[in-house]
Amino acid sequence: MRIISIDPGYERVGIAIIEKNTKEELLYSECFTTPSEKKFEDRLFMIGTEITTLIKKWGPTEMAIETLFFNTNQKTAMRVSEARGVIIYVAKILDLCVYEYTPLQIKNAVTGYGRASKSQVETMTRKLISIGVEKKLDDEIDAIAIGLTACASIRK
Amino acid sequence: MRIISIDPGYERVGIAIIEKNTKEELLYSECFTTPSEKKFEDRLFMIGTEITTLIKKWGPTEMAIETLFFNTNQKTAMRVSEARGVIIYVAKILDLCVYEYTPLQIKNAVTGYGRASKSQVETMTRKLISIGVEKKLDDEIDAIAIGLTACASIRK
Repeated sequence: MRIISIDPGYERVGIAIIEKNTKEELLYSECFTTPSEKKFEDRLFMIGTEITTLIKKWGPTEMAIETLFFNTNQKTAMRVSEARGVIIYVAKILDLCVYEYTPLQIKNAVTGYGRASKSQVETMTRKLISIGVEKKLDDEIDAIAIGLTACASIRK
Repeated sequence: MRIISIDPGYERVGIAIIEKNTKEELLYSECFTTPSEKKFEDRLFMIGTEITTLIKKWGPTEMAIETLFFNTNQKTAMRVSEARGVIIYVAKILDLCVYEYTPLQIKNAVTGYGRASKSQVETMTRKLISIGVEKKLDDEIDAIAIGLTACASIRK
């Protein structure tokens, strides 16, 4: 089973490709960014294009994506939702199954504790899957954690 | 100039196709609905597919879409935003220019009064463009009003 996992956003999108056989293997990850000086519609287009390209290149059959937590900044929440809509739509066009996980489910799956901190999530993620030593952005680590959550919960 | 105008939503999407020459002509309108028993991702897919089909059939070069008003129900706001993201992404893939209008701009353009009621918007919309006598749903009337707003503001 091969999964593309997504930490959704419109400024930064964390993306990971994980292969699950007997063990999970991280094939690719990135933090995709869109320039703030671009029109918002163009940023949505860039995100959709990038996800399409990666799905076609890596051939995952499942997409795991974080559900949006209620946000005190409603404008931000609506923009992230627009990006989420694009990402889910692209997955459906390319015939992937889509799985959504809440932050609580992800923290629980990776650390065993639903209120774990960002650094606890990173530490446990690095123990669960070989990521390499280089520094990764939070969004990229989060995408990997979302992928691990999917690996643990999807029975295929 | 031919415009596809959208009153965005995930349960009901108002859609109109308006041709503007010396006068505006309504070529097509509908209220597209998605079944509530479907998974949300499938409803997003249905919306994207419908908009794609209509753009390919009618060949508009511009899309006008209402901006989402801040909503007290954040879950609804996020779902409508996901649908908006899909609709805007589809327009960009098919190379349309996207224009966004606030409810205030639309009411002002159609009735001259930013706080006009739904029935005032409908009455004025029916005076501005020939819609036919049959009953139309609010979402469809709103889409036509959004299209008229775009006709009045886009200089092409």
